[in-house]
Amino acid sequence: MLASTTHVIRELFVTERTADAEVDVMRAAAARDVPVVVVDERVARSLGDTVHPQGMVAVVDLPRTRLDDVVRRHPRLVVVLVDAADPGNAGSVIRTADAAGADAVVFTRGSTDPYAGKCVRATAGSLFHLPVVTGVNAVTSLELLREAGLRVLATTTAGEPLNEMDHALREPTAWVFGNEAHGLPADITQVADREVSVPIHGRAESLNLAAAAAVCLYASARAQRK
Amino acid sequence: MLASTTHVIRELFVTERTADAEVDVMRAAAARDVPVVVVDERVARSLGDTVHPQGMVAVVDLPRTRLDDVVRRHPRLVVVLVDAADPGNAGSVIRTADAAGADAVVFTRGSTDPYAGKCVRATAGSLFHLPVVTGVNAVTSLELLREAGLRVLATTTAGEPLNEMDHALREPTAWVFGNEAHGLPADITQVADREVSVPIHGRAESLNLAAAAAVCLYASARAQRK
Repeated sequence: MLASTTHVIRELFVTERTADAEVDVMRAAAARDVPVVVVDERVARSLGDTVHPQGMVAVVDLPRTRLDDVVRRHPRLVVVLVDAADPGNAGSVIRTADAAGADAVVFTRGSTDPYAGKCVRATAGSLFHLPVVTGVNAVTSLELLREAGLRVLATTTAGEPLNEMDHALREPTAWVFGNEAHGLPADITQVADREVSVPIHGRAESLNLAAAAAVCLYASARAQRK
Repeated sequence: MLASTTHVIRELFVTERTADAEVDVMRAAAARDVPVVVVDERVARSLGDTVHPQGMVAVVDLPRTRLDDVVRRHPRLVVVLVDAADPGNAGSVIRTADAAGADAVVFTRGSTDPYAGKCVRATAGSLFHLPVVTGVNAVTSLELLREAGLRVLATTTAGEPLNEMDHALREPTAWVFGNEAHGLPADITQVADREVSVPIHGRAESLNLAAAAAVCLYASARAQRK
């Protein structure tokens, strides 16, 4: 992870044990002039917020991105989270978006904070791989993405089946996912080009947000890369 | 949920407020002779293990299933979790397996307990929708599933790309997923028919277990239902 994220790392705090174990990370830090401070286990614990800290804490710049900047780069696959509440889910969506080759993830105002510890950990480094936009108005963002030529697909429980959309998925797409319990509000679905549903074949009422995002984003990746 | 799970519910504890709000659940319980005990908020809190209890706790039978029983019903889609450690991930896999129309989920010995509170909650009811097998030997289970005519597909980081397997996915399939950090051990991949990878298009090193399962299971559901 360090190699791809050094541009935002300002300082590293490590325990002696971790410094000995993570030789490659220590070398990379030295090569990039990142200051390294060796601390004892007690200090490392107080710096992190997990029960089992990994013995390494980095001070990083928050990599802020504006939606304008995202749009200017002609994105083909964008994820928009509206009122997403669970930081673990949100982090998993960022990781999956990265894996599926998406260009950006947008957190509209009212969504969970992508820089909360639980979310950062769930991204497994992907928070630093792709642009994350925060604090924007949902309707305005979707309008901007539409004007930029992306099809805005809102995931709902009563939309067109995902399986029948291969042709549409070849186009540049912005996927919109709503709150884990309440889904998307009407003003959002109204501004979308289409409503789409992941088909439910069994007796589950719905998919978990992160699972639904994985299915939709990989359907797009597949259609766009054929 | 109650309608589909009353066969395993022995007793319900509810707060007065929840009893008033959940009229349908109370009616369903009465119709099925499930004893209902009204308790105060303090007791409800002590019965559950969440910070924000929902005011309802059910005593249920654990719905145990043997792998023999699963195999006897000619399954077409089975999930096998080997050394899965995270209960939230495991619960999400059960929920996704249900949604994708899978026939069963197998937890091999050493995996997390599907009846742990965090896992049960993550299944969102699906734990009671489809057979869950626990405590079995991994290699023996895969051999049994192969003998029953299922293709055993092990997910690894260096397998065949999922996108190129549509033809194979039409056959009855057992998907095998490994530990979140360490993947599958060699004795497991050796007994599998093929190794399969979800393609990584961006800079993420891998997908979260639950996200990978969602992509694979929906690829199977789609291929089998064409």
